[in-house]
Amino acid sequence: MKISVCRKAHFNAAHRLHNPEWDDAKNKAIFGKCNNPNFHGHNYQLEVWLSGKIDEETGYLIDLKILSKLIEEEIENRFDHKNLNLDTEEFKTLNPTAENICIVIWNLLRGKLDASLDLKVRLFETDRNIVEYPAI
Amino acid sequence: MKISVCRKAHFNAAHRLHNPEWDDAKNKAIFGKCNNPNFHGHNYQLEVWLSGKIDEETGYLIDLKILSKLIEEEIENRFDHKNLNLDTEEFKTLNPTAENICIVIWNLLRGKLDASLDLKVRLFETDRNIVEYPAI
Amino acid sequence: MKISVCRKAHFNAAHRLHNPEWDDAKNKAIFGKCNNPNFHGHNYQLEVWLSGKIDEETGYLIDLKILSKLIEEEIENRFDHKNLNLDTEEFKTLNPTAENICIVIWNLLRGKLDASLDLKVRLFETDRNIVEYPAI
Amino acid sequence: MKISVCRKAHFNAAHRLHNPEWDDAKNKAIFGKCNNPNFHGHNYQLEVWLSGKIDEETGYLIDLKILSKLIEEEIENRFDHKNLNLDTEEFKTLNPTAENICIVIWNLLRGKLDASLDLKVRLFETDRNIVEYPAI
Amino acid sequence: MKISVCRKAHFNAAHRLHNPEWDDAKNKAIFGKCNNPNFHGHNYQLEVWLSGKIDEETGYLIDLKILSKLIEEEIENRFDHKNLNLDTEEFKTLNPTAENICIVIWNLLRGKLDASLDLKVRLFETDRNIVEYPAI
Amino acid sequence: MKISVCRKAHFNAAHRLHNPEWDDAKNKAIFGKCNNPNFHGHNYQLEVWLSGKIDEETGYLIDLKILSKLIEEEIENRFDHKNLNLDTEEFKTLNPTAENICIVIWNLLRGKLDASLDLKVRLFETDRNIVEYPAI
Repeated sequence: MKISVCRKAHFNAAHRLHNPEWDDAKNKAIFGKCNNPNFHGHNYQLEVWLSGKIDEETGYLIDLKILSKLIEEEIENRFDHKNLNLDTEEFKTLNPTAENICIVIWNLLRGKLDASLDLKVRLFETDRNIVEYPAI
Repeated sequence: MKISVCRKAHFNAAHRLHNPEWDDAKNKAIFGKCNNPNFHGHNYQLEVWLSGKIDEETGYLIDLKILSKLIEEEIENRFDHKNLNLDTEEFKTLNPTAENICIVIWNLLRGKLDASLDLKVRLFETDRNIVEYPAI
Repeated sequence: MKISVCRKAHFNAAHRLHNPEWDDAKNKAIFGKCNNPNFHGHNYQLEVWLSGKIDEETGYLIDLKILSKLIEEEIENRFDHKNLNLDTEEFKTLNPTAENICIVIWNLLRGKLDASLDLKVRLFETDRNIVEYPAI
Repeated sequence: MKISVCRKAHFNAAHRLHNPEWDDAKNKAIFGKCNNPNFHGHNYQLEVWLSGKIDEETGYLIDLKILSKLIEEEIENRFDHKNLNLDTEEFKTLNPTAENICIVIWNLLRGKLDASLDLKVRLFETDRNIVEYPAI
Repeated sequence: MKISVCRKAHFNAAHRLHNPEWDDAKNKAIFGKCNNPNFHGHNYQLEVWLSGKIDEETGYLIDLKILSKLIEEEIENRFDHKNLNLDTEEFKTLNPTAENICIVIWNLLRGKLDASLDLKVRLFETDRNIVEYPAI
Repeated sequence: MKISVCRKAHFNAAHRLHNPEWDDAKNKAIFGKCNNPNFHGHNYQLEVWLSGKIDEETGYLIDLKILSKLIEEEIENRFDHKNLNLDTEEFKTLNPTAENICIVIWNLLRGKLDASLDLKVRLFETDRNIVEYPAI
């Protein structure tokens, strides 16, 4: 049977929810306070879960120092203390909902991980709103 | 691949575990302190998880304001600051164990949600005792 | 300088807020949902803080096994899985608000502790409502 | 002896640390990532602590429904889903450090509370960075 | 559909990561600070999840008092306040990584549980490092 | 009025409680499981609180990057992934109770901080056992 390991991380960012194909009234109606043109922000908490077989020599699925460094390089350096809409390539044209941020993070990490490892990403936008990809 | 989103909620209620088909001695033996005829209570913490496909226009699986309102109307208004055994239809004849409360909540929400969305409910009776339906 | 140590504990109980000198309408107006005649309940979280001088032989202010046992005997056995209004002497005629519960706990513990130790009690009725006695 | 009660609340906001009397290089040197001209953001967690004497009729220091509504009206409505630098009067010319936000909140609440109540405000900018006013 | 219940527990232990087939330099290079010959330690938090069908008479999947006692006897008594490398049979020759500890716990509990119950074990080595077996 | 700021940190260490002036039986009787000659361990969580006047130019009491670096250099590098009894000068002859660790940390930091800043240290040995110096 496979085993899973998780490393937690976090980044603090500003964002605004907005669909440029809609007029202001519809954006306001759908996204409410999250549509504020001047942005708001969150402390995003991130859980990166990998699943696979234990390496018998180390007793590790993966060295968490390596996973931690990967998350720092690919995710924290890219998104921490940034405005997701203005400062990042990923959300120039993609609406930075928690769902889309979670999938973007999954894709950024997937490309850097060995194919033998399964990947799940759980993102807490607040303590009460959580997203997980792929689905639980 | 599908994505999942979760909204947390909570309600504070009194309850008593009791099987009316058993005598007092057996109820005491099986349910212990939880059988107290005068009731005890909990701060129930609730996680409602939905899974499905993202709406490309909004970037949402579901607007959490809608899910939050549904939980308020169907669950919080029904159970918050209530005596589950005495004040609710659902537990008049059903023993309000965490397991049964979790399944009742699942059924109440399932009937109000679009069939395209998968539903899971996680209920914390205390910080140490958790129930999830369907099974993890 | 003195040092403080804290031990956490918890008890799960039912209660109802009610002033018998008021009529039902006033009780409902003041205590709202907390006045439900059939009770509701909480997972009460408790922090007991003692302050004083370290014992040089042990390096302890107090052996936490002793404090933990005192809390179990004086507080948990008295209130856990109880209906505060119906099952306890302390709240037969005293309204079991978080404030009053906190002061009752302080008095129960104060009588059992060495006079050289200062005592503070912090009580969480929910994650969002906290009481501390004496005042911070 | 006085007793204290606490109500928790939260607001999600964008901000930028910046001193307009300094040039860009000094702002960058002092405030680092927090000086990002496009802003970043946080989930601010707030604890409002009041101290005073219990009302013997209610058993309350203060009805937490009243305190909760006051926090909503004075703090959450003002700061939630806002850009502190651009959308609020309070931080048009005041640098929105956690320290300054905490003192602004204290002043906003102080003016609305009975003089017999002592007030403390604790603000969590992240899980690791906390501010309290007046000092512990 | 099956339901899951979880009971949390914890134990505090010392350990050292080390592969006796490697020389000191390689152990240091792979395990870093965790290879300290004098050991370090953790507060391990444990979640034991069982899945199956509810007993209609009790409304329980399993009486959590029974599960709690099983965890105490099989896991806490064995590992709490121990040096995993020196004081336990299980890790005399097995490297006590979080992954291996999690699988050892799974095997210890699996042998004592009814075959109709599915078992998952989640182990927190720290707040940031988590392992789950079988994989999520 | 002064303001307080707090930075959290953590270190994982092994330790053993022992008084060399007592025989084994007395050590076992007083310190129980904590006297295990092979050590056990904890994830120590640390809160460092400073109080003083805000710098009007920065809006900071102290730059938390500076405080964070000080904690890393003075505390984390000294104690993280160490055996407190064997690997540190501070606890060669001082019993590493939570109380003594807290005071040692206070002294290490006090010597490096400006005299205008008041210092408090709160140390969590586990989630349930906390120490604070000076006393609350």
